[in-house]
This record gives sequence, C-alpha cells and structure tokens, in this order.
Amino acid sequence: MIRINKNFSNLKENYIFAEVNKKVRKFKESNKNAELIDLGIGDVVLPIVMPIVKVLEDSVKSISKKKTMHGYGPYEGYKWLRDVISKDYKNRTNFSDLSLKRGLSISIDPDEIFIGPGTKEDMGGILELFDNNQEVLIPDPVYPAYCDTSTIEGFKINFVNAIESENFLATPKKIKPNSSIIYICSPNNPTGAAYTREKLKLWVDFALNSGSVILFDGAYEAFVSEENIVRSIYEIPGSRRCAIEFRSFSKMAGFTGLRCSYVVIPRELKLNETHLIDLWKRRISFKTNGVSYLSQRAAESVYQEDTQLELEKNINYYKENFKTISKSLDSINLKYFGGKNSPYVWVKCSYNKSSWEFFDYLLEKLNIVVIPGCGFGENGEGYFRISCFVEHEKVNQVAEKIKSIF
Amino acid sequence: MIRINKNFSNLKENYIFAEVNKKVRKFKESNKNAELIDLGIGDVVLPIVMPIVKVLEDSVKSISKKKTMHGYGPYEGYKWLRDVISKDYKNRTNFSDLSLKRGLSISIDPDEIFIGPGTKEDMGGILELFDNNQEVLIPDPVYPAYCDTSTIEGFKINFVNAIESENFLATPKKIKPNSSIIYICSPNNPTGAAYTREKLKLWVDFALNSGSVILFDGAYEAFVSEENIVRSIYEIPGSRRCAIEFRSFSKMAGFTGLRCSYVVIPRELKLNETHLIDLWKRRISFKTNGVSYLSQRAAESVYQEDTQLELEKNINYYKENFKTISKSLDSINLKYFGGKNSPYVWVKCSYNKSSWEFFDYLLEKLNIVVIPGCGFGENGEGYFRISCFVEHEKVNQVAEKIKSIF
Repeated sequence: MIRINKNFSNLKENYIFAEVNKKVRKFKESNKNAELIDLGIGDVVLPIVMPIVKVLEDSVKSISKKKTMHGYGPYEGYKWLRDVISKDYKNRTNFSDLSLKRGLSISIDPDEIFIGPGTKEDMGGILELFDNNQEVLIPDPVYPAYCDTSTIEGFKINFVNAIESENFLATPKKIKPNSSIIYICSPNNPTGAAYTREKLKLWVDFALNSGSVILFDGAYEAFVSEENIVRSIYEIPGSRRCAIEFRSFSKMAGFTGLRCSYVVIPRELKLNETHLIDLWKRRISFKTNGVSYLSQRAAESVYQEDTQLELEKNINYYKENFKTISKSLDSINLKYFGGKNSPYVWVKCSYNKSSWEFFDYLLEKLNIVVIPGCGFGENGEGYFRISCFVEHEKVNQVAEKIKSIF
Repeated sequence: MIRINKNFSNLKENYIFAEVNKKVRKFKESNKNAELIDLGIGDVVLPIVMPIVKVLEDSVKSISKKKTMHGYGPYEGYKWLRDVISKDYKNRTNFSDLSLKRGLSISIDPDEIFIGPGTKEDMGGILELFDNNQEVLIPDPVYPAYCDTSTIEGFKINFVNAIESENFLATPKKIKPNSSIIYICSPNNPTGAAYTREKLKLWVDFALNSGSVILFDGAYEAFVSEENIVRSIYEIPGSRRCAIEFRSFSKMAGFTGLRCSYVVIPRELKLNETHLIDLWKRRISFKTNGVSYLSQRAAESVYQEDTQLELEKNINYYKENFKTISKSLDSINLKYFGGKNSPYVWVKCSYNKSSWEFFDYLLEKLNIVVIPGCGFGENGEGYFRISCFVEHEKVNQVAEKIKSIF
C-alpha cells in the first residue's frame, strides 16, 4: 500500500489559527448573544480603494471581449507589473506628493521579480529548490507556517531565540557559522519587532560567511514608519549574494482576497555554479500557470500616485488603532511591544497567566479574540498578539473593555 | 554552502512549451512579415461569457464596500462554490434545457471538494502527501508536468505505454500489482484518447488490488461527447477508495487567465489509518491562503443555466474546429486521433519525419505552430499535437494550407 509522507506526523497537532477558530466557535455556540470583537487573524477590514476598483472594472470589461481577452499569462507574471515593481524599488521619490517618499533607492531588474499568488504560497514553494538534508534557522516566536512547511519538506529545524531581552530580534551572534536556510520576518509577525540596517547587516554578513541563504519575509513592509528600520533586505550591502525577498499586496493594499505577491531572486545569488533564479524559473514552469490577470492588473495600479495616496490613508487608519490600543494598555500598565512598524501589538500576559489562560479570559469575560503567543513558538508563551486590522468603532470598544481587565 | 535539490539535475533539459516558444521567437526574428497561426499551446481564445462577466462586475463592486469586502477566504474554498460543484456532480438533469444533461449522477460531499488556483498547482501539491521513496506510474505520452513534478519531488518514475495499437490508452494488464501513484489524464493531453467506463475500471481494480492511488486529471471533461466515455472517475465502483479527481474551470469556462480549479478527495480514501483528505486539509492550511474571491464568484456562476448555455456554445465553437481540421487531414490522408472528446488532435507525422522535423516544416513552410509529440514522452515521437483552441477564420486558413503539405 502507498505510504504517506511521514513528516506529517512531525507537525504540531494544531495550527494556531485553526485552534483559535475552534474555541471561538464553541464559545459562540453556548453564548449566542455575545458580540465578539476579533483582534485575531491579521485580515484587512477596509475595502479595495477606488482607483484599484476602477482598474478591476476595466479589466473585467477587457476579458469580456475577444480582442482584449487574456488567457494564460507568463509563469513569472506580466512584464508591465514586474516593471512597476522594479521602478518602485528604484525610486519612490518620483511622486509629486512627497509624503509618499520612503526607503532607499534599490536596483532590482524586472527579470529578478516573480509574481505569485501570496507570500505563504511563495515561501512554501521556495524550499523545493534546496536539498532537504540541511538545516533551517527559524526565529522563535514567528509565523508558524515557516515551521510547518520546513517540517513537511523534511528539513531539520533549529530555532533562534527572539526574546524580550533582545527586543524580540534574533541575532546570529551566538550561532555557529554553519550553512543554513534562514527565515527572517521583518517587521515580524507576531511581535512587530523590526530590524534596523545595522542589526540586519549582522545576518547578511553571517549568511555570506557561512554560505547560507536568507528568506526575507517583508509582507508588512508598508507599516514601517521609522527611518532607520529596513524596508528591503537589499538595502544591506552583500545581500544580493545571499537573500531572497518576499513581499505581498495583501497588507499593503488589502489584497488578502485578491491574492497577489512577489518574490525577488537576485541574479548574483548562486550556490556553487547554480543560479537560484534559474531553478525558480524552471520550477514555476511546471508547478504553476501564473496568477489571475485581474489580480495582476489590480496590483499594477497599486503604484499609481492616486492609489498610493488612498493606501496611505488606509495604513494610517490601522495605525490609529495602535494609538488607541496602546493608550488603554498604558492605562492598566500592561506591557506591550511592536505596533510602531507593524500592524501587530505583542502584549505580555500579566498576573502570571499563560497565553491560553489570557486568551480564555479575554474571550469569556471581555468577548475579545486575540492570538495566544504560544502558537508562534515556545518563546511566545506568556504573550498574546493583537491585530490592528479592525474598525475604529470596535477598537474603541476594546479600549474601554481593556480598562476593566482583572 | 547550502546545497540545491539535486533532483533538478534529473529534469529534462527543456520544457516542451518553452522550447517551442524559443524556436518560434527565432523564426519571427528572421521572418518579420510572416503571419503565424498558433495551434500550439492549449489556451482558450473566446472571451469570458456575459453571465460570468456580470457576476465579476458585481463582485468587484462588493469588494469596494466595507460591508461586503472579502479578505481571506477559507483555505478549502467558499462553501457556496463547493456546494454548487457538489450539486453539479449529483444532478445535471435539473436544467430545463435538456441539452445540458450529461454524465451519471455522483454523490460528492461539498466537504470532499477543495478549491485551488489551477490543476497544475493542485497536482503539483498532491505529491507532498506521499513518501517519495515510492513509484509513480505515468502514461507515455502525457502532459509533461506530471513527470517534472515527480522528478523534483524525488519519486521513481515508471512509464506505461499508451501507444497507437492500444488506442493511446495505457492499461494495467501487463503491470505487476505493486503499489504506485498512478497518473491518468482522460480525455488525454496530448492524444485526445479517452477511457470508456469498462477500460477505466481496469485501473480502478488494479489500484484497489495493489494499494495504489490514482490521480485522475479531468481537466478536459467538458469536451467529452460520447455516451460511453467517462466524465468522472467516480462513475466507477470502488473509485472512492483509491482515486483523487482534479478538474479545472480553465477549459470548461475559459478561466486560463482567472485561475480556478478543484480537487475531490473522497473520505473513504485512506492509507492504513490515515485519511488523505485530512492530510490535504492540513497542507493547505500552511501552504496557501485560498483562491481569489473574484475567481471563486466567477466559478460559482459557471453553474447557472444561462452560463451553461453560453459555455456549451463555446465548446461547440472549438469542436467545429476539429471538424474543419479533420476534413483537411482526411483530404491528404494524414492519420490522426483524438478530437472527438477533447480539444486536441493527435496527428501522425508522414514521410518518415520526426516530430521536430514536422514541426520545423510546418513552421517554416506553412507558418503553422504545433507541438511536437516527442515533448510528451518517448512514445510521442512521430506525432504532433494540434490544439482546437483557435478562431474559425484561422482554422480555415490552416485547412487550406494543410492541403499543400509536401
């Protein structure tokens, strides 16, 4: 009889978000009138902005006509989309509205950019390029999909502490320079911690010295607001020889339901004589048939100036939530981190409660849903994650409720 | 230094479609005025039909408003889409227009249906459920992605002949009953050969006796026109214990650019005590974030009666092409197969020419692009594939040109 992939048995019993959903469902069943406020899953609540909606409407019209119908697109994504992403890396100063200027100017060739359906999908696929008889380094705590994907593919996982005393930023200082595949998520999900250029350089140098490859998850880049915080790993010298960058339109432009992302694989990134970019090109030719034409057109329009101004408003809307939440946490002396460069606030459980105890308390007493920190790794125990992706009205209610904690 | 997945070196040098593109590009460069007719890649040419366009327009409106915005959907796809697919399996006779009735009534629970972004993606992902220290059986000739995906994942590949003397249908008659993962594509790409219930039953019985799992690619199901030809493998008794079915909206409804597909994993399908459906649920939770909301709404509307009538017209439009092509092939006594239950015609090269020789001749002398059969496996040598996804005007020109062959 055919045997299953035995690595499935090494997965943790439950995926944190599934477990939270189960608890919430159960609570709702026995508390039919309770109105829950969900600060759990990091999903946008603001609708697609009008300049993108207009482009989507035009694109739907175009595929309704024979002359402008679009079938299969290129595996790597349409050139017009990769071109505007490349320009965005190069020069964010060409907008007339200077508030849109941010980050450093970086040269990425459009041919080094690959459009995908989502960062989760892209980061899940990239491991196929590597021999699985090797180690991956995963910060703890971090987004659990890295761990699950590496487990299924059969890689050996080493965790790197990213704890409070180090501002929740993993560092290579105490690690032996063995070659590894290194996951870095900055701004980090769940802690909101984000690397300065100086601190990220330590990882780039480590990777270059040890022959490692960095998988840099920049899904939350749009939330970076401090000048010294890295937006792209390619701001760091040498990174083109050791790092792959993943970005998504999900949080930047509310595309969680539209599905569009991209991966950057610099041409210089090679292992012995093999350029990783060539392996990825080969892989996507037999593993995918490209990303929805409508989603790619929508993504292209993200880089219009009118769209950027609207998106900036949305990001600021979510950032307002952080201010509201932080004020109420301050008022009851609950310790928290993140929020400044990310949509997540990472809160320390007080009263010696565990992550799940605090979760249960918030659910049952205050009818607030958060994500228990322990779902993001052992070092997440004793914390919980609050998502700022929520309506102002709701966050105001949360602020009131929080004041009554214990 | 990090090592790459060594299975990449076992891939065939070139993916057939990439190689064809390269030759075509080169020809165009030195023949700037030549007007090529592309009968190569199997991509639809008719636009999205109006009932689907209307639904897409409404869906774009809905995501532009806060109250009806849709972010992340369920990993397995929206229930409303899985419900209508389940109904479609059950009862195609509830349309008032009886021309839409076809196939047998099959019970598939909506919870056994998983929405994906495309059959290529779904079939690429499914192998992750299995221990790779096992054999896959792949018919020769067949769609090359099966082979490439299995190679990258490290499976051992055994080819099963699907040759002219057996009507291009692989049979298990001469195969030792070892447990394997068996790929079956019916109607087949590239040969257009399609299994009768009687012939497919041989494979289902083989799988049950040997503890094998069948991966049934039904991407071309909408083109089945003969009553005794299988539309779904679940028409065969026992198949729920050994088969996974893959289907796509690409060829059925012109979704090659919209990206939507589905996989059926029956609950009874288990290996020892593990239900494959549970592994797949787990896998998609950390490997994907679902399929575009717009694509899923579009897919849902495929099952409306007005949409079905429009899609039927489109399928018939492509079938007309087969009639035109077959007449002209008859007139010059070129032997061909397929076409009746599929959008592909499989033509035998005459004059002792090889697949590539015939390809070059057609490209250079007649300015027609086809796909050389050898790209689909060793047994494809001496044949070429013609796609019926082309405009009538062009196929009429092709018919004229074909008459002048040699």
